[in-house]
Amino acid sequence: MILALDAMGGDHAPVETCKGAINACARHSDLEIILVGDQDLVRKEIEAASSDIRSRLHIYHAQETIGMEEMPAVAIRKKRHSSLRLAMQMVHSGDAQGCVSAGNTGAIVAGGVLVVGRISGIDRPALGVALPTPNRVTFLLDVGATVRCKPVNLYQFALMGDFYSRHILGVSNPEISLLSNGAEEIKGDEVVAAARTMIRNSNVNYRGFIEGDDIPYGKTDVVVCDGFTGNVVLKLAEGLGQAIYSMVREEIGHRFLPKVGVMFLIPMLKDLRKRLDYEKHGGTPLLGVNGAVIKAHGRSKAPAVTSALCVARDFVRQRGVELIKGELEQGGGV
Amino acid sequence: MILALDAMGGDHAPVETCKGAINACARHSDLEIILVGDQDLVRKEIEAASSDIRSRLHIYHAQETIGMEEMPAVAIRKKRHSSLRLAMQMVHSGDAQGCVSAGNTGAIVAGGVLVVGRISGIDRPALGVALPTPNRVTFLLDVGATVRCKPVNLYQFALMGDFYSRHILGVSNPEISLLSNGAEEIKGDEVVAAARTMIRNSNVNYRGFIEGDDIPYGKTDVVVCDGFTGNVVLKLAEGLGQAIYSMVREEIGHRFLPKVGVMFLIPMLKDLRKRLDYEKHGGTPLLGVNGAVIKAHGRSKAPAVTSALCVARDFVRQRGVELIKGELEQGGGV
Repeated sequence: MILALDAMGGDHAPVETCKGAINACARHSDLEIILVGDQDLVRKEIEAASSDIRSRLHIYHAQETIGMEEMPAVAIRKKRHSSLRLAMQMVHSGDAQGCVSAGNTGAIVAGGVLVVGRISGIDRPALGVALPTPNRVTFLLDVGATVRCKPVNLYQFALMGDFYSRHILGVSNPEISLLSNGAEEIKGDEVVAAARTMIRNSNVNYRGFIEGDDIPYGKTDVVVCDGFTGNVVLKLAEGLGQAIYSMVREEIGHRFLPKVGVMFLIPMLKDLRKRLDYEKHGGTPLLGVNGAVIKAHGRSKAPAVTSALCVARDFVRQRGVELIKGELEQGGGV
Repeated sequence: MILALDAMGGDHAPVETCKGAINACARHSDLEIILVGDQDLVRKEIEAASSDIRSRLHIYHAQETIGMEEMPAVAIRKKRHSSLRLAMQMVHSGDAQGCVSAGNTGAIVAGGVLVVGRISGIDRPALGVALPTPNRVTFLLDVGATVRCKPVNLYQFALMGDFYSRHILGVSNPEISLLSNGAEEIKGDEVVAAARTMIRNSNVNYRGFIEGDDIPYGKTDVVVCDGFTGNVVLKLAEGLGQAIYSMVREEIGHRFLPKVGVMFLIPMLKDLRKRLDYEKHGGTPLLGVNGAVIKAHGRSKAPAVTSALCVARDFVRQRGVELIKGELEQGGGV
């Protein structure tokens, strides 16, 4: 399998992206990776790889990069030789079966739509994240691709979330919920209320409105919301994990626990923090585009890049895009 | 000072509301409370109070109550003899200097607007909550009064948040931030972007967009957002506190920590959980209405009702409504 990697995307590119590619090839012998970026910089980073791995790493030169602060749609349109755009073109042309970038989120979304293209029947794409909760994995979408949504967007997110939970996360009959400001029918705004009607009339297992506190309790398999709200939810969850870590340390300080107790606690807290640091680990599929496009966190270091490449590999192997198309055909009855 | 209490509002009314009123009178000798509700039920609950306290508790009969599932505006309009509406009328008429309810949030907001009335210059009210963070108290508004906002609503929330942080929370030059899906200028939707321009041109100390993970780190004094997003944020924070409690216990289990270590940990975790269980403690002022209206959590037991009554007392003593009016007059320059 051939994947394209935007070697220049992210805060720690190209050093960590290249390292991540090397590790992904070491993990999966069927993997070839096209590193799209400044050829001199990339070559230097992969020089030390073993000959087996080196033979599966290909360099494709890109003269330009898209920065984190650039206007996404403008950058994708104008920077025709950027590493991100070229990586996406490979997915569009079939030269690569999927691509990964830790770059500008908006540009990844814009490139997904403008370069890779949308799946017919999907108006706007969604980024989804699998959140660990005490009793199950909850798939939250959208976390930032489509900032504000029409009802039909939320409806399509519900179909794609159903698909992802079922086929990728292996949940047999996933429960789909809409995030709202209260569980009662009278809550929500007009968009959420209209989306509810559409989802209810579809084939998915719709369970009603869900509130913010239901998410960490793992009360549902799929949480559907617009990209603004989902982004706030995801980041708040990450931030609270970190803040609680500080607070626990502070509480420990207050209590003069014996030092040995603190030594027991710290590794546990670190594990917990990791469990809550959702986005840094793994990749986030951009659902609704006609190809496997995986976003990695902007702060990704090598392990997160490797993990995103593995997510892309799984998504391609499981024929993610074809499954979404099939789901849409049987789908809704809107 | 005379406060009106909706004795029938909330999941544990009238038992816990009456108990909360008794405790508030015990705490503050200047306090008289009008218990608005079913006179027979209320009388029974306050019978056992000492004669000093009993002399400061007045019963005002209400034939009707508004349930948690009722359509707010309809209920407030039709149920003219409901305990909530009567309590609010006392604020409007001046018979009470403020009121507290743990009832239907939407009905409290609708009653605030329709019965108590808005402050001139405020289009929509906001519910604010003071969140503890490791290094400061962050005031978040709106958490559910105005579900979707126009830019001018967010702008007015910024002014009211500035006032609350300054005069009630005692922050000398509060930093005001707008919640968005990214810190960069290009993020946000049209509403947030337009609100930013208005807030920037006002006298408040505007600090820019803030992301979800910045809230628990305590990066700002006031976070402004619409009631949909704020409600999700508040509930998620509460829910995560609980979920992390479960996860920590689980992690402890994995690690076979000596039992004595666990015994040290549990009280600490309980304290932490309390610190994160924001809404249950204290009351939430409905800002922008022409009187002191304090919402308590629907699940409030006596201590939370007492605390909400104390918040109402403080708000009246600090002349909260007059201060907002003054702030608006000097205010914006929109």
